[in-house]
Amino acid sequence: MSSTLLTGIGELVTNDPDQQTGVLGVRRDAALLLDGDRVAWVGDRAVAPVADHQVDVGGRAVLPGFVDSHAHLVFDGDRAEEFAARMAGVPYSAGGIRTTVAATRAADDRRLAANLRWLLAEMHRSGTTTVEVKSGYGLTVADEARSLRLARQVTEETTFLGAHVVPVEWADDPDGYVELVATTMLRAAAPYARWVDVFCERGAFDADAARRVLTAGAAQGLGLRVHAGQLGPGPGVALACELGAASADHCTYLVDADVAALAGSATVATLLPGAEFSTGSRYPDARRLLDAGVCVALATDCNPGTSYTTSMPFIIALAVREMRMTVAEAVWAATAGGARALRRDDIGVLRPGSRADVLVLDAPSYLHLAYRPGVAQTRAVWQSGRRLDLSVG
Amino acid sequence: MSSTLLTGIGELVTNDPDQQTGVLGVRRDAALLLDGDRVAWVGDRAVAPVADHQVDVGGRAVLPGFVDSHAHLVFDGDRAEEFAARMAGVPYSAGGIRTTVAATRAADDRRLAANLRWLLAEMHRSGTTTVEVKSGYGLTVADEARSLRLARQVTEETTFLGAHVVPVEWADDPDGYVELVATTMLRAAAPYARWVDVFCERGAFDADAARRVLTAGAAQGLGLRVHAGQLGPGPGVALACELGAASADHCTYLVDADVAALAGSATVATLLPGAEFSTGSRYPDARRLLDAGVCVALATDCNPGTSYTTSMPFIIALAVREMRMTVAEAVWAATAGGARALRRDDIGVLRPGSRADVLVLDAPSYLHLAYRPGVAQTRAVWQSGRRLDLSVG
Repeated sequence: MSSTLLTGIGELVTNDPDQQTGVLGVRRDAALLLDGDRVAWVGDRAVAPVADHQVDVGGRAVLPGFVDSHAHLVFDGDRAEEFAARMAGVPYSAGGIRTTVAATRAADDRRLAANLRWLLAEMHRSGTTTVEVKSGYGLTVADEARSLRLARQVTEETTFLGAHVVPVEWADDPDGYVELVATTMLRAAAPYARWVDVFCERGAFDADAARRVLTAGAAQGLGLRVHAGQLGPGPGVALACELGAASADHCTYLVDADVAALAGSATVATLLPGAEFSTGSRYPDARRLLDAGVCVALATDCNPGTSYTTSMPFIIALAVREMRMTVAEAVWAATAGGARALRRDDIGVLRPGSRADVLVLDAPSYLHLAYRPGVAQTRAVWQSGRRLDLSVG
Repeated sequence: MSSTLLTGIGELVTNDPDQQTGVLGVRRDAALLLDGDRVAWVGDRAVAPVADHQVDVGGRAVLPGFVDSHAHLVFDGDRAEEFAARMAGVPYSAGGIRTTVAATRAADDRRLAANLRWLLAEMHRSGTTTVEVKSGYGLTVADEARSLRLARQVTEETTFLGAHVVPVEWADDPDGYVELVATTMLRAAAPYARWVDVFCERGAFDADAARRVLTAGAAQGLGLRVHAGQLGPGPGVALACELGAASADHCTYLVDADVAALAGSATVATLLPGAEFSTGSRYPDARRLLDAGVCVALATDCNPGTSYTTSMPFIIALAVREMRMTVAEAVWAATAGGARALRRDDIGVLRPGSRADVLVLDAPSYLHLAYRPGVAQTRAVWQSGRRLDLSVG
């Protein structure tokens, strides 16, 4: 692989605290050298090194590619009719997941892989270079393992979510299902997974069940993540912090003790306002978390039931409009914040040694991500040093 | 020009009441024949006529192209910093318009035309095939005339908005400015304009000034439009209905008499929720209007101050999330509703004789426009029978 020098950068978001220019470490008149799959150099255009190739980005803004740390991309079918009914007044319940479970089980590998790649291509087109992909629509030993096997073909950030919802065939024995998830299903899934996650919510799994699955996952060497506080206050955030989970996701309903626990832990609060947008619910209180010193990430929660968006720019615009985050806070949360939620320090940042994941916006400033909502503003994307083809297939 | 038959249409939105299938006149297993710049035939695939070319759209949804009936596209500069400050708590006032006026006056024709074409290309990429373009950032006789001359090069739906705000040089004599707008400026603008519009709002123009400009415009043969009720209740809606304006735009703050006046008139209420999204204001009450029998349109209000989006799909998603419109109502308002607001019956509809403005979504249903917020879902666009190049320039 050869080296590429990006010049003509109007505004470079580095997320590098060493830049000492605010939360985003913004540089002007900068150049960026990519060498192989890494960033080799960041500095003033005037003293930039020579490279094999040079690309003038014409005064545009350059950022680290987005890190989407929460997505459910292995499924078949859509739930457009359920969405339309909900918008007309039918409330959301976790039970809708079962519709997608039935469709996913019925689909062959090829179909699931094609859908996954289609969504991934959408993500690339909106500037995402790292995505976490969860299982959770298989809910049998074989279907969870194959979901993760397919996910592993496109990302290293794979999450076993056998504890997404109790499938209909286990409705009479939810404890038996938890035991299956924590033993046989976990063992089948673990070879393809980096993380284990539990939907800890009324209607899904309680604290005891979540603890059983998470501790079993940790014993298999998996990192921990928890869906917590989406539909109402619950034990998920406290459990995530107690067990040292990398992230507690949703955090829409929090009690004071949850905020304190997050602030005193290394657990990131990953907010998913796309879900609130598409379920008509109230939004998480990002300011309360930020003001308490909690590390906040933003992600799409892309899934066919409650947040069928792949667009991190849309999530940033929502965070600014609906959660009173500044544009800089939202952009940080969608890049470096996502990296923290995945316990990664090689992505979500542009400094020597980091992965060459680069987004060139068709705009002069990162501000345009919130200033121009709904507008496709991706000009170019490099992922691990390779420039991606962004054309519609 | 030759004929093209679109087949494989999973769902065809016609907006043709003759189809008798709900507000959108949806057909399944349909085919659509384009001949020259017109729709020549709509019917069952099984009995479709032969054409010079055939395009199988692979089960995707097909709609009339969006009609964006309210946009301010002739300007220079952006106001990203003002946006960021507003999101951090600084309230919006109409005075911000003057920033753009200064930049626009300073720009040469070529720069303004390039910006206009760039925004227009964005609109095409998100499925818009007709756009209304207002002047209003020139505010001198020469600058308003040239704004409309440039606008006329890209659309027949041009609107003279000399009464956008009183420019600084007229601050001491606002009545004198109104007189200029209603006489010399209007005469210079009229050859390039189809419509005249007034920003009737506290801080801009009162009822007397609005009436003076609108009646002068009508005497020159221009149709009428009014910016009304954006920042607070005011006389704009009543005036629009009294004078037979085609549209009263914004309608965020309405009194009961306004709703009754709209319901009893041929004046469309054009809602612009992108402005509320980007100013952090409350949204218009679309349900109140729809339930009262008012004809509602949706448009972007694309402008660099308060709604810098070109995306009608984003506006549809907002209308569903924030204004309790059904997806069908929102799609109708963004197509046929926009056409009504421009007093057109040849666009916003797909039936024999209508203009061949066709949007192919990369989705099986129009529902996906709201179900997948922020996602670029345009697969192909025909405008007056010509297939547009949607690649990023």
